[in-house]
Amino acid sequence: MMNYLKKNYIIALVTSMSISLYCVGQQADLMPMPSSIKFNQENYRLTDHLSVAVFGKADERLYKESSRFLQRLAERTGLFLTSWNVDKNLQDTNSAIQIFSENKGVVQLEMNESYNLFINKQGVIIKAESDIGAIRALETLLQLITSDKEGFYIKGVDIKDTPRFAWRGLLISQPYHFMPMDVIKRTLDAMAVVKMNVLHFYISDDQGYTIQSDAYPRLNQVASGGNFFTKAQVSEIIEYADQRGIRVVPEIDLPGHSTAIITAFPELASIKRNYMLQDHWGVFDPTIDPTKEKNYLFLDTLLTEVASMFKDKYFHIGGDENTGKDWAKNDSIKMFMKENNLPTTLALQTYFNRKIQQFLRRSNKNAVGWDEILMKEMQEEEAKKYFENGDFKSLIQNDLPKDIVIQSWRGMEALISSAKNGYKSILSKGYYIDLNQPTSYHYLNDPVPFYNQVIIPDSEANFDRFESDIIKKIKKGETILDTAEEKLIIGGEATMWTEHVSPETFDSRVWPRTAAIAERLWSPASIRDVDDMYRRLEIISIQLEWVGSTHIKNRNMMLRRIAGTENTLALEHLVDYLEPLKGYKRNEADNFTKHAPYSLLVDIAVPDPKALRDFNKLVDTLIRFNSKQHEIKLLKMLKSWKNDYTTIMQQADKNLLLKTALVHAENLFNISNMLEEFLRLKHINQKPSKTWFTKFNLIIKKASLPSGYCELMVLDSMTKLITAKNN
Amino acid sequence: MMNYLKKNYIIALVTSMSISLYCVGQQADLMPMPSSIKFNQENYRLTDHLSVAVFGKADERLYKESSRFLQRLAERTGLFLTSWNVDKNLQDTNSAIQIFSENKGVVQLEMNESYNLFINKQGVIIKAESDIGAIRALETLLQLITSDKEGFYIKGVDIKDTPRFAWRGLLISQPYHFMPMDVIKRTLDAMAVVKMNVLHFYISDDQGYTIQSDAYPRLNQVASGGNFFTKAQVSEIIEYADQRGIRVVPEIDLPGHSTAIITAFPELASIKRNYMLQDHWGVFDPTIDPTKEKNYLFLDTLLTEVASMFKDKYFHIGGDENTGKDWAKNDSIKMFMKENNLPTTLALQTYFNRKIQQFLRRSNKNAVGWDEILMKEMQEEEAKKYFENGDFKSLIQNDLPKDIVIQSWRGMEALISSAKNGYKSILSKGYYIDLNQPTSYHYLNDPVPFYNQVIIPDSEANFDRFESDIIKKIKKGETILDTAEEKLIIGGEATMWTEHVSPETFDSRVWPRTAAIAERLWSPASIRDVDDMYRRLEIISIQLEWVGSTHIKNRNMMLRRIAGTENTLALEHLVDYLEPLKGYKRNEADNFTKHAPYSLLVDIAVPDPKALRDFNKLVDTLIRFNSKQHEIKLLKMLKSWKNDYTTIMQQADKNLLLKTALVHAENLFNISNMLEEFLRLKHINQKPSKTWFTKFNLIIKKASLPSGYCELMVLDSMTKLITAKNN
Repeated sequence: MMNYLKKNYIIALVTSMSISLYCVGQQADLMPMPSSIKFNQENYRLTDHLSVAVFGKADERLYKESSRFLQRLAERTGLFLTSWNVDKNLQDTNSAIQIFSENKGVVQLEMNESYNLFINKQGVIIKAESDIGAIRALETLLQLITSDKEGFYIKGVDIKDTPRFAWRGLLISQPYHFMPMDVIKRTLDAMAVVKMNVLHFYISDDQGYTIQSDAYPRLNQVASGGNFFTKAQVSEIIEYADQRGIRVVPEIDLPGHSTAIITAFPELASIKRNYMLQDHWGVFDPTIDPTKEKNYLFLDTLLTEVASMFKDKYFHIGGDENTGKDWAKNDSIKMFMKENNLPTTLALQTYFNRKIQQFLRRSNKNAVGWDEILMKEMQEEEAKKYFENGDFKSLIQNDLPKDIVIQSWRGMEALISSAKNGYKSILSKGYYIDLNQPTSYHYLNDPVPFYNQVIIPDSEANFDRFESDIIKKIKKGETILDTAEEKLIIGGEATMWTEHVSPETFDSRVWPRTAAIAERLWSPASIRDVDDMYRRLEIISIQLEWVGSTHIKNRNMMLRRIAGTENTLALEHLVDYLEPLKGYKRNEADNFTKHAPYSLLVDIAVPDPKALRDFNKLVDTLIRFNSKQHEIKLLKMLKSWKNDYTTIMQQADKNLLLKTALVHAENLFNISNMLEEFLRLKHINQKPSKTWFTKFNLIIKKASLPSGYCELMVLDSMTKLITAKNN
Repeated sequence: MMNYLKKNYIIALVTSMSISLYCVGQQADLMPMPSSIKFNQENYRLTDHLSVAVFGKADERLYKESSRFLQRLAERTGLFLTSWNVDKNLQDTNSAIQIFSENKGVVQLEMNESYNLFINKQGVIIKAESDIGAIRALETLLQLITSDKEGFYIKGVDIKDTPRFAWRGLLISQPYHFMPMDVIKRTLDAMAVVKMNVLHFYISDDQGYTIQSDAYPRLNQVASGGNFFTKAQVSEIIEYADQRGIRVVPEIDLPGHSTAIITAFPELASIKRNYMLQDHWGVFDPTIDPTKEKNYLFLDTLLTEVASMFKDKYFHIGGDENTGKDWAKNDSIKMFMKENNLPTTLALQTYFNRKIQQFLRRSNKNAVGWDEILMKEMQEEEAKKYFENGDFKSLIQNDLPKDIVIQSWRGMEALISSAKNGYKSILSKGYYIDLNQPTSYHYLNDPVPFYNQVIIPDSEANFDRFESDIIKKIKKGETILDTAEEKLIIGGEATMWTEHVSPETFDSRVWPRTAAIAERLWSPASIRDVDDMYRRLEIISIQLEWVGSTHIKNRNMMLRRIAGTENTLALEHLVDYLEPLKGYKRNEADNFTKHAPYSLLVDIAVPDPKALRDFNKLVDTLIRFNSKQHEIKLLKMLKSWKNDYTTIMQQADKNLLLKTALVHAENLFNISNMLEEFLRLKHINQKPSKTWFTKFNLIIKKASLPSGYCELMVLDSMTKLITAKNN
């Protein structure tokens, strides 16, 4: 089925990229888009008598989710339903919404999530192989609700839907900033809305160990930094996720990223040192000594305990960013390496991994690891040569067990190598949502960006470094992955590393952008119209609020705090056009630690703000059509920016916190002035003087400097406008 | 100490009500106001080097709260502190904030919460008898933070503070709408901000039994309605509250209000009936049979289990609103009453209460009960006679053990009776925040509204029905309570009965109004300037957001949902001038059940909105000073209301949910038109015609009808303006 669909989309893709398969006369406001959708001319009108009946076999979760569905529907529509309960024993064939589930689902890798959803004026019919597919259908159904003067209705459609990838995850790291239960729950609710199915629960790092351990209570007393989930809470999370068809995959990052564990148990360390919980961000040297047998006793006990707390078959053992420096400093470790013919750090880590995997196997778990765990002992330069010769396979140690899943954070080459060597693989590079990149970048990042020797347009996001070689190969007509290998790429994961978020800002860093990643991983590859994605993103963004996401509503709360007043309109206008620094630039400021304030201007600014997109579009339209109407709109904005500057100046006079905002406000004021003058001259058919241009360039240069870790984002469009209009 | 203070305030009160004790040159933006505050001319400026040191004896909670204090301070000020940790072993005499705590506190009734707070340019010194007082001081300190161009600072002050009442509670009922963990936690955080110290945790009612029971798992399977707190979660709540110096008092309401328990165990019931969880609101007949011995076995086991889950000394056994109807229907109960000389429902309930209290005593708990449990078997008419004769005492059954606490929901007469008979008593009447009354009403409601034969002005809120007699007595110079009796009135409780709230709207029904009740219960009686309360309420309201309260931010989220768009400005302006129906009027609409949508216009509207107060003030000023400036402001508002009507009309055309809003918008449009015409005529020195007045009155009459369970609140001011200006 999946292959059949894929093939069809490729044909559509190749024949015409610009024709959408979906908008045949009517628009679908869905995210993710389903595999196929056909509108009929009928609508089903919602009434107070609405009820849900479930037929066939279904897990308890479907009854609970159907009830939650009815509650959400009531909240949305204001309907006074008789009840939200869906009675197992009352299979009412008169129910407007009838669900047919063939089997009880089990939330696990490659569970069946597909469904058919048919709506006409009689009602709604959902057919699914398991209750999990039915739950996905209910989310689609909620998104289809619309209204008119008479009330609410659902557009008549015939939807057949199945996910493109089986693993559609979101990683949340707990050790950097602890995200408490309510953040986790509302994130799971939001993930369910966009049909994501894996919560990657990152437990341990240099900054903390964040779940209860009865085997080693010191991990909580000494290594938790005061924050950890009890066993009851972990079970609560797993149950909450399971009800929504979401797996929870734990990660204990080993043997590096382990300062916290070592702080509680210094005897595990590779060298003697005064160990303390890390409160800075980065890559650190403390590493577990892989040569001591008693360390394995410790890890066996710990991993067995953790394994028993999580019910998913998969268990992530990390394996990334081991610096090897502490190993190199320890003579007995160096001796061990020599004696055991383990010439490099990676070789010794492989030795370590194998031991660890035995423990997992005993707990009936399969391992997941970051892509390093797969790489043979070699230097980057050497690896590059292999790539140039197309010799992916020789990069990989073939003797690792094939039941592990490789998570690629280093990119396409690792992903391809992994798949070519028979490992199930997931992509994370290009889905690092903590780096504040635009939604479109993540959206176009495809885990399998090539089909039958065709590169999906605009998918170069994930090609860099070695990867241009892959492009060359494809262009030469060489096969990158055969069908069986391609099938091993089973999905991807957005990663929310929480160095620079607090429970207050977490949501605005995750949503709505992650909804676009969810679509990339669920929907057919051919769905990649960026404009339509943004149109639908705005709709889904509001709907995500209804399940509790704070990504919109916390903004004004934080503005009120930073401003010290309710009068935040000017600041709000300013922050609309700011973005937080991208990539790892904020890490370069050494003062951002676990105890830094994450309530600053930069934390209020969001990546890829809608207002900025609208502004860029306005300027583009103005350049293209030169319409009076658009120029008036622009002039209004310039005027209002100038007014905002006055307001912010007054507020900053009583509030040091607004100093960084004032810098941007002043820059925007200056640019607005210049632009007004430019347009005035233009109207009387004059060109600006050389001095004007010198001044303009100076102002743009000044304005392009970050202030308060934020960048003013209107500069490119401003410059473009001047350049275009001056010719 | 308390009495000394009280006396002083009474003198101040009597000598001059209009002079505030506090604003000697400088304004204190605190809520609740402290017992005494003196400003000095020094300020302490905050820097990144700020730290807290604790000296003396303190419970762990003070270290945790000091750390949370530093985190909140950092979020507020953007300061990059080295650490938020407060090290027990590092008593740094150079720390800017030094806390001296004499003893480890125990969170219990009559714990010592007083503190001294001294700030000058050197730093901050907190002195308290226990860590609990120190925690209250830290909340005051956070409220004192202010800013200028150079940064943040704390105004130099010398504060001596002690609570007026020992019991300052908030009741949350779980059975109607279940308020999950995150709501409870953020409510506890907000309570701590305003120094409240009791969470009254209402567990069981006709609609559900909401905590885990191992003794009777059917209470969870059958009687919970799907929602209950596990034992681990209950412990988590208690620990969370304890850290903030807040007690948690559980209530199992018996023997009425027990449909849920009976649904799980029908053999407990007084009559045979098909029992089901109630999903409507009101008073229902199902009642436990108090004559069966084996029912007491059940209750003994249950209450002992619940008692073991809560560590507070007090346990609430309800006792309110027993209709007695089911008892009257059962012949064997009637026989029992005859045989045991229990002539009335109340007599039999007293028999029941005594049995129950034995179980509690065995668990080392004191009982709390609603005021009915104290009343002798008599009819209301009969009781009224007693009151008219001033014979409070004869109303009370004296032989009830004196260690119980009486909670008065029926008013001052019950409270006085209770105190006169030697019972510790708390007031709840007048603090029913679920009834949507204005803040000022609650604020002026004083648990002890008389001192030395003086009635505190404007405190009549709690005098009605019988209570005018009390006023008469006071005026006649009769003593109501002697000093010892007065001391028995130990506080009050705001009650948030959750029939008509959801987790989304809970906060906006509780805050900020409850902050004013908190001040009534903490601050000296003389602090009762309503205007100044409202001024400070606006400040504290924003600060409550910073500990997670959603009372402001959920408003726009809900508007976006009801509007189906982000464009909610017009609706927002409208809802600013609407209030939800007051009292029990919403209950009269039978369609509000547990499964009704609580996402409607009425749920977005808040009681006592700030915009309305501002509008009323504007009209008052206009009437008084007739200034052009104010008239222009009013005309602007009228114009904008008229524009909003057009917008809402367009939106309602696509959205049935906005129909009720449209009614109000249209009324506001019509009134605005009339008012514009009136002012225009006024300017040319004409008076409106008779027809104009007829029309105006018709429009006002129409506009005063509720729509969507909301009332348009500007009508009184409008009419007042017309009347005043017409003369």
